Amino acid sequence: MSVEIPPCVSHSVLVKVKAAGVCHSDIHLISGVYDMGDGRKASATDGGRHLPLTPGHEIMGTVEKLGDGAESVGVKEGDQVIVYPWIGCGACRKCLSGKENMCEGAAAFLGIIRDGGYAEYVLVPNARYLVKANDMDASQSATLACSGVTAFSAIRKCRLHSDDLLLVIGAGGLGTAAIQIAKKTTGARIAVADVDDSKLELAAKLGADYIFNTSKLAAGDLASGVRNINQGRGADAVADFVGTPTTTSMGFRLLGREGRLLLVGLVGGAVQLPLPLFPLRGAQIAGSFTGTLAELVELVELAKRGVIAPVVSGTYKLEEANEVLSRLARGEIKGRAVLKP
Amino acid sequence: MSVEIPPCVSHSVLVKVKAAGVCHSDIHLISGVYDMGDGRKASATDGGRHLPLTPGHEIMGTVEKLGDGAESVGVKEGDQVIVYPWIGCGACRKCLSGKENMCEGAAAFLGIIRDGGYAEYVLVPNARYLVKANDMDASQSATLACSGVTAFSAIRKCRLHSDDLLLVIGAGGLGTAAIQIAKKTTGARIAVADVDDSKLELAAKLGADYIFNTSKLAAGDLASGVRNINQGRGADAVADFVGTPTTTSMGFRLLGREGRLLLVGLVGGAVQLPLPLFPLRGAQIAGSFTGTLAELVELVELAKRGVIAPVVSGTYKLEEANEVLSRLARGEIKGRAVLKP
Amino acid sequence: MSVEIPPCVSHSVLVKVKAAGVCHSDIHLISGVYDMGDGRKASATDGGRHLPLTPGHEIMGTVEKLGDGAESVGVKEGDQVIVYPWIGCGACRKCLSGKENMCEGAAAFLGIIRDGGYAEYVLVPNARYLVKANDMDASQSATLACSGVTAFSAIRKCRLHSDDLLLVIGAGGLGTAAIQIAKKTTGARIAVADVDDSKLELAAKLGADYIFNTSKLAAGDLASGVRNINQGRGADAVADFVGTPTTTSMGFRLLGREGRLLLVGLVGGAVQLPLPLFPLRGAQIAGSFTGTLAELVELVELAKRGVIAPVVSGTYKLEEANEVLSRLARGEIKGRAVLKP
Amino acid sequence: MSVEIPPCVSHSVLVKVKAAGVCHSDIHLISGVYDMGDGRKASATDGGRHLPLTPGHEIMGTVEKLGDGAESVGVKEGDQVIVYPWIGCGACRKCLSGKENMCEGAAAFLGIIRDGGYAEYVLVPNARYLVKANDMDASQSATLACSGVTAFSAIRKCRLHSDDLLLVIGAGGLGTAAIQIAKKTTGARIAVADVDDSKLELAAKLGADYIFNTSKLAAGDLASGVRNINQGRGADAVADFVGTPTTTSMGFRLLGREGRLLLVGLVGGAVQLPLPLFPLRGAQIAGSFTGTLAELVELVELAKRGVIAPVVSGTYKLEEANEVLSRLARGEIKGRAVLKP
Repeated sequence: MSVEIPPCVSHSVLVKVKAAGVCHSDIHLISGVYDMGDGRKASATDGGRHLPLTPGHEIMGTVEKLGDGAESVGVKEGDQVIVYPWIGCGACRKCLSGKENMCEGAAAFLGIIRDGGYAEYVLVPNARYLVKANDMDASQSATLACSGVTAFSAIRKCRLHSDDLLLVIGAGGLGTAAIQIAKKTTGARIAVADVDDSKLELAAKLGADYIFNTSKLAAGDLASGVRNINQGRGADAVADFVGTPTTTSMGFRLLGREGRLLLVGLVGGAVQLPLPLFPLRGAQIAGSFTGTLAELVELVELAKRGVIAPVVSGTYKLEEANEVLSRLARGEIKGRAVLKP
Repeated sequence: MSVEIPPCVSHSVLVKVKAAGVCHSDIHLISGVYDMGDGRKASATDGGRHLPLTPGHEIMGTVEKLGDGAESVGVKEGDQVIVYPWIGCGACRKCLSGKENMCEGAAAFLGIIRDGGYAEYVLVPNARYLVKANDMDASQSATLACSGVTAFSAIRKCRLHSDDLLLVIGAGGLGTAAIQIAKKTTGARIAVADVDDSKLELAAKLGADYIFNTSKLAAGDLASGVRNINQGRGADAVADFVGTPTTTSMGFRLLGREGRLLLVGLVGGAVQLPLPLFPLRGAQIAGSFTGTLAELVELVELAKRGVIAPVVSGTYKLEEANEVLSRLARGEIKGRAVLKP
Repeated sequence: MSVEIPPCVSHSVLVKVKAAGVCHSDIHLISGVYDMGDGRKASATDGGRHLPLTPGHEIMGTVEKLGDGAESVGVKEGDQVIVYPWIGCGACRKCLSGKENMCEGAAAFLGIIRDGGYAEYVLVPNARYLVKANDMDASQSATLACSGVTAFSAIRKCRLHSDDLLLVIGAGGLGTAAIQIAKKTTGARIAVADVDDSKLELAAKLGADYIFNTSKLAAGDLASGVRNINQGRGADAVADFVGTPTTTSMGFRLLGREGRLLLVGLVGGAVQLPLPLFPLRGAQIAGSFTGTLAELVELVELAKRGVIAPVVSGTYKLEEANEVLSRLARGEIKGRAVLKP
Repeated sequence: MSVEIPPCVSHSVLVKVKAAGVCHSDIHLISGVYDMGDGRKASATDGGRHLPLTPGHEIMGTVEKLGDGAESVGVKEGDQVIVYPWIGCGACRKCLSGKENMCEGAAAFLGIIRDGGYAEYVLVPNARYLVKANDMDASQSATLACSGVTAFSAIRKCRLHSDDLLLVIGAGGLGTAAIQIAKKTTGARIAVADVDDSKLELAAKLGADYIFNTSKLAAGDLASGVRNINQGRGADAVADFVGTPTTTSMGFRLLGREGRLLLVGLVGGAVQLPLPLFPLRGAQIAGSFTGTLAELVELVELAKRGVIAPVVSGTYKLEEANEVLSRLARGEIKGRAVLKP
């Protein structure tokens, strides 16, 4: 790749990339669509995108240069920083409330709408989007900006009490982050469902109280398993990090009274849900798209204290980006791959 | 009907019924099932029900007799009272938190599990479930116990800000109550969708800012109509009081960023929803089953001040109960019918 | 005043001032201190202030010129706008959460730290701080930026239920705004205490349910008056817009169980409070400093619909600023004065 | 003591006491008053108390006998149970919302208004107030009902984020419980201030991240110490478990922007607070009286999993109650004493 180094205009910061995580949504970016499950497709980005675009929204790097006014925020050249990529228009209601990831206007998400981190340098439009990483591991800290903060925000939205049971579906990168975060920041017990025994072993090591290999359970056994460990109740919250119609439907039916189902996945498809269960159980479903900048700041604090240790499966050269994406699309990469320029 | 007057045991209160509202769910009680939309049926009541049972959960009456200990709560013989029928086990987590309508244990819902208000007398197990009605109209105040508090709780769960747009689907008994409640207790603007012009006129008179007759709109026109009145955004909240797969699917697709869809209906069926929209929009769906006793107390306060005036369509003799239910099932009764012993 | 028109740098917007409200805190700005009630004084501004400074933080005007990048936000030259003056550093935890008024870093509050609206032109560092005023009255809309949003935020922090009683202390500019806001956005009943019958009459006209002239009440009569109208309970919330040790102490003692006392005043002094009442009543005190930009957006929505109509007592020429401030300090100006360049 | 065993009436449960904690407020019960700090005294109990009264509100025991209807709740004879003593009238707004500890009506607090646990048997008016203790240690589990749940509720009311700093004042029974609870259920860092090095050592062992011996610090050193460990900010929350005017005033002045000060103590006295700091810092003070039954249920869950281990300093015979109380009043007992019949 030979992309020009962008000029560092007012308030902006030029960051030299040290690590850029590879995310499933980078594949959507290439295909450009999400499958709505009814034959229709939705655009993976809004009209603001101008191709070609450099992907990469999980970025960690070193501050190379500060534009006018950027120094006031407290970062300086040479600082190790994690980049918050979910940059909104700054003026819509969501942005005004600190929820730029939910921007209702012309968002400028790095690696999605604007050039991102699969490059030697990335231009960040304002120093406020940089979170100091100090001496954290580059690859691990990069992944906090998407998979980490997505898990953090989902767990917060579960609103867990100390006598609640949380069921995490999927013990991959997001799921293992969620287990660590829930273990540290809530008093809830954690059950994990996956189809892979090695992942479940890792989940247990990270703090899961109960594990279920759903590939080995007969229909209905997970439901009765959940009730057995939760005093006869369904799950108080389910965080579905797989996000297929099958897992979502399963998660919904496992909910107890006022149970919360958190959906973060962009795999696509449609789910069919029985309407009477919503009122009868007071069931709730909430979609969650990454997290806020304030949530990333909280998460980085936890990571610095060693409470959260993201699981990185492998690092690759920047030149290998296309190959890594292809292998990820074919399901050949487990866990989080990280590119290093 | 010749049912024995129940003995007034410790803490309980015998109430002479003055008015009992007729609710759609009374029909489910007779059929005994909810349609899950996938060929399956769910029981309309849990195992605690012993047939025959007297229906009627929207009850207003006069305190006839107080059991031992009941007088301490502040009600006395002759008081006009509204009965909160959503009585839980008293000991599960939901009951301990004041959410008996969400009881996880052996609920004792009046008119559903225990004998209700289609009778001359109803036995209320504890005086705390009585809310003083003073000189309120018997028929109107009876309906607060189910349709009123259902609308109240749904509006609260919409968490409306003053720059939000609420869309109410269905301007019947619940919808018109919701319009009045939202108008008084929130700063939000209110749009109403229905297929009946006369209902929409009533909605406008009660305070709706915008009305849409969906029977006269082409596909997509409601969506663009909502965006036009909401600065290009989707609806910030949708309260669906119709509750069919069609309205629910429509309501979900109309949501803007972090939009909330409230479902209260028990009509049955299943809805198919595109999964990517949940995270991309931060969309939320919440089922709501009636409301809490504390919410009923709040609502009765509003009704006493004349802020809420439930719309009652007609009153009937207790002896006509079966006929009224049959006509309601055939769709021949519009609005809320009330039985008067 | 002959101040140079500031150059319109990147992202910033030059606004031609049409109206600038005169606030009590402008007087603190001149004295430079707050009285802590124990002989000590606290600086009225942090170290970022460079004298001389142009006061004026309640600003309404016309967009004169947009800096580079500012146009993207949706405002254009000629737009009528209200300026949000509580501009934070943009990078601290409070700013990241949309609470710039609570900035923990180097705030840039207009009229307090940076040049404000007692001038022909004011430079706003980013277009996001402008809220469109359309054809609203200039003087009234200017006051929304401080007295209006202060009342709005205080009422929100009262977290009022429909069966709550709110007591507003002081029916001046803030108090009358609070009455209108509480009346429209909550179901609570509103009582108002003041020493001036004409103000109490206005309060009643604006929607107060009960009024108390405390200059005519014997000690203890207000407490029993509150209990009489609130079923024997103390006030569920008290919003004290006078803010002297006397009113604060009185407000605290009037609180019922879990009652909330909101303090917004900067008059100064110290209050003595009996410690056991905090736990025994679950009493809560919260200080509130103006409001957030998102709250101002909500408030402007209400004002555009005519729900809120700020009470402006008189308009003056910009040249009269010093005299108006002197008269305000001597207590000779009632209500909100507004300067017009 | 020779008190008759009370008859087990409808719904009530007779519990054979195994352990009863001795609480500071038992001393207030004897004196009958709280010192308001202005020469006045407030009654320690409301008019419902009939002397003589058996104290003791931290009760653990065995179910001896169930009254009619009590068995439905799921407890049976022989069960080990913790008794929730903060029993309200059941009918006021607070009771309806599950906050019986904040009862606005005729409360029936065990050991305060009704006979408590300094006895062989205690009568609990409803089985819902019993939380199963299984095979937990009798003395430890008894203390959960007051000191434990008080700490739990205070920590919850601190609303801690993962990048917050909590300062706990006082590392006694309540403080050490609070440290354990905050450590498990929040991501916040915990600082502890006390005057006793041995208590501070225990605090560190239980998970405190920072400790301050205030008896060895010069004036202002605690404030700068807090800022040093919190990126220049004041404390985000302070939980004051000492509750004297000195500690409360200190805690208030240590608060950062939007900082929360939690007060639980009933030691008495008055505190003088500078008014301008409330709005300027957005400071909040909240009194907290014990906790709710739902909170006790959550806490017991944590204790069963070993997350919380209350520190009991010594056990005594029931006959020694008066002597233990006298020694507690003279400050000769450190930590929690427990009586065993």
